[in-house]
Amino acid sequence: MGKVRSETIMHWDGSMSTREPSPMLPRIPDNDDLILYDYEYNASLIPPVSAAHKGMWRYSALLPLDDQEVRYPLFVGNTPLIAPDPLRQLTQLPRLWLKDETRTPTGSNKDRATALVLEYALRNKIGVVSCASTGNVAVSLAVGAAASGIKAVNFVPAHVSESKLRIMQLAGATVFKVEGGYECAFAFSRKAARLLGWGDRNTGVNPLTLEAKKTVALEIWEQLGWRVPDVLVVPVGDGITMSAMVKGFRELKACGVTERLPRIIGVQAEYCQPLKEAWERGEVALQRRYQSSARTIADGIAVDAPIGAALALHDIQESKGAFVAVSDDDTLHAISILARYAGVLAEPAAASTFACLKPALASGLITPDDEVVLYITGSGLKQPQYLAPERPSSHLVHDFAEVERILSSF
Amino acid sequence: MGKVRSETIMHWDGSMSTREPSPMLPRIPDNDDLILYDYEYNASLIPPVSAAHKGMWRYSALLPLDDQEVRYPLFVGNTPLIAPDPLRQLTQLPRLWLKDETRTPTGSNKDRATALVLEYALRNKIGVVSCASTGNVAVSLAVGAAASGIKAVNFVPAHVSESKLRIMQLAGATVFKVEGGYECAFAFSRKAARLLGWGDRNTGVNPLTLEAKKTVALEIWEQLGWRVPDVLVVPVGDGITMSAMVKGFRELKACGVTERLPRIIGVQAEYCQPLKEAWERGEVALQRRYQSSARTIADGIAVDAPIGAALALHDIQESKGAFVAVSDDDTLHAISILARYAGVLAEPAAASTFACLKPALASGLITPDDEVVLYITGSGLKQPQYLAPERPSSHLVHDFAEVERILSSF
Repeated sequence: MGKVRSETIMHWDGSMSTREPSPMLPRIPDNDDLILYDYEYNASLIPPVSAAHKGMWRYSALLPLDDQEVRYPLFVGNTPLIAPDPLRQLTQLPRLWLKDETRTPTGSNKDRATALVLEYALRNKIGVVSCASTGNVAVSLAVGAAASGIKAVNFVPAHVSESKLRIMQLAGATVFKVEGGYECAFAFSRKAARLLGWGDRNTGVNPLTLEAKKTVALEIWEQLGWRVPDVLVVPVGDGITMSAMVKGFRELKACGVTERLPRIIGVQAEYCQPLKEAWERGEVALQRRYQSSARTIADGIAVDAPIGAALALHDIQESKGAFVAVSDDDTLHAISILARYAGVLAEPAAASTFACLKPALASGLITPDDEVVLYITGSGLKQPQYLAPERPSSHLVHDFAEVERILSSF
Repeated sequence: MGKVRSETIMHWDGSMSTREPSPMLPRIPDNDDLILYDYEYNASLIPPVSAAHKGMWRYSALLPLDDQEVRYPLFVGNTPLIAPDPLRQLTQLPRLWLKDETRTPTGSNKDRATALVLEYALRNKIGVVSCASTGNVAVSLAVGAAASGIKAVNFVPAHVSESKLRIMQLAGATVFKVEGGYECAFAFSRKAARLLGWGDRNTGVNPLTLEAKKTVALEIWEQLGWRVPDVLVVPVGDGITMSAMVKGFRELKACGVTERLPRIIGVQAEYCQPLKEAWERGEVALQRRYQSSARTIADGIAVDAPIGAALALHDIQESKGAFVAVSDDDTLHAISILARYAGVLAEPAAASTFACLKPALASGLITPDDEVVLYITGSGLKQPQYLAPERPSSHLVHDFAEVERILSSF
């Protein structure tokens, strides 16, 4: 890795302070600081095309890992950046791209953070890692830990999705269903990890999760031919995924290989938009808390009290971006469009990035000439109830004459 | 591509004949011959590490494509070859690998054949492509065609899985549900394609499908550090996937970069094992037909009358391999083991490759020192009913004292 630098620490609330770096993170780190590196316009932190490490680990000089062989056995990172022509035609956006994270081990961008936390656990002989999660993170940790020979302990709300619960159990995780919902599960998870010396994979608590997530920004830049897009559209729940994007592009600037950030558009669900509302009021931190997350289908971004709120509000401003909220109906329609015009099976939170295009174009946040990347954060296959055709249609036939009759009417 | 060679054609029944090559396949080819190239110990048909094309297209010199830019927009190929340590420990097979095709656009190896057929259609302005399928192929074609702006027409049995049907519809395919089962669907599909000049994506009919599938063998060799494994375990339904593996390794020999084939172990389901039984009787083609495919959970390999039977029986012998049949119970257990010890969520047909290890080790088909690759052909996420824990367990808790009590009993 690049030398972790000593001077400046940016805190979650966007403030900066100075202190000595921790002496190489003796165990899974558990603090609220960003990890910074000794960038100093040092382009050698950027991997050459022929880098030995593959996938996410290409960027090991910008990850808090020393230069050992990677032990994590699942392949993570280097997800496709695609541009299906039918989607560009439909939207009349000739420079539209999808960063497709449906192609990870468990079908969500959570697999990056899981990979880095477990790689860290493997190197430091940490045998148990836990998390609180409403679904995707817990599935990701259960599966990744199984492949690593590490014990996963998941704290989930008692009403967790049955299909996701079954995958956690299939992969051998210990699962606590917590009466009291996600926040209670989060508190139990933190307490158990502290008490028992487990690794803590909670996003927004363990800074490794943000470090892993930022590799998406680095990949987008590289896949565009070492170019920063004009706009990056990111689903925003707790704010960490969005801030990780900004940190990734900020680090490219700090390494001297790019000159600007993309404008970040953070997408929230209409029923749960604490960050968008705070941003419109000009707040730098949340003043009040939401209690409506359960009402939206986009569970991946339904967070009432985003742990990364202050940093997210800081970052969206630094990127000259904006928050947009979209309705569940528009998100369902977006799932259909992404399947029909791009061959991508997206979950609701991921499809919300497409739903945001229309309002963003109408308000001028995006112009048709912009190079726009939608961050498709997860696969719909784990929530098949939302992979539903808007107008289901099929033809039951008994003989070929019926086939011909139907086809002749097309 | 390498020049398609004129001298020798190998037919599906394993016989060879001589004829002129077709003049570069003016439309989606529709014949029963294998496509051969001008190998002549020509290692230049093997891509360098830095090849411009990515994924499956790296091997374009061994595909029947001229050297244009690839238009197919979804990323296909270069799936991970992984070796989770817990699985090696459990099996005591220190050289065990999984070739993980759960990581394709629609979670099955069918996406390779879809990609090549649609690439061909895009280059030749073929606007409609059809197939018959019990599920995975139809989903793959529907999604791939959507991304390509091509119309997909799927003929499926009337009892097709509801979740797979919904994905086809979501992606905008025209779906004919055929009373009369798969074989009737197949006949209708062939007839409609011929009548209307559509592209025909049916495996075993369109030789492009086999060409695409063989790239898995090329990738395994490359990912092992340009080494042929001792054993490759492949699920076998219609026989084409297995014969594609043999063709891939045979071509590496013909290019002069390897010296031998791996032993191929073809896995069939106990309830539907026409190829295994024919092979045990020493037949070179099927003498009688099965009618029991509907009884096994491994629908991906449940084929009563394998279209590639003769070639498969020829190829398994050439590779000095064997057929093994496994029970549904062992396959369900294998799904659980792959999740718990490898972090791979496999569908039944894919997991059958793991189920076959025990009998293959017992009978000496595999020895513990062998380098063994299991071909994990598809993801379980499309059939979540089989992603079920053998002993579902979770702990409902109301306060942290309960968590502590439960953990102390571990």
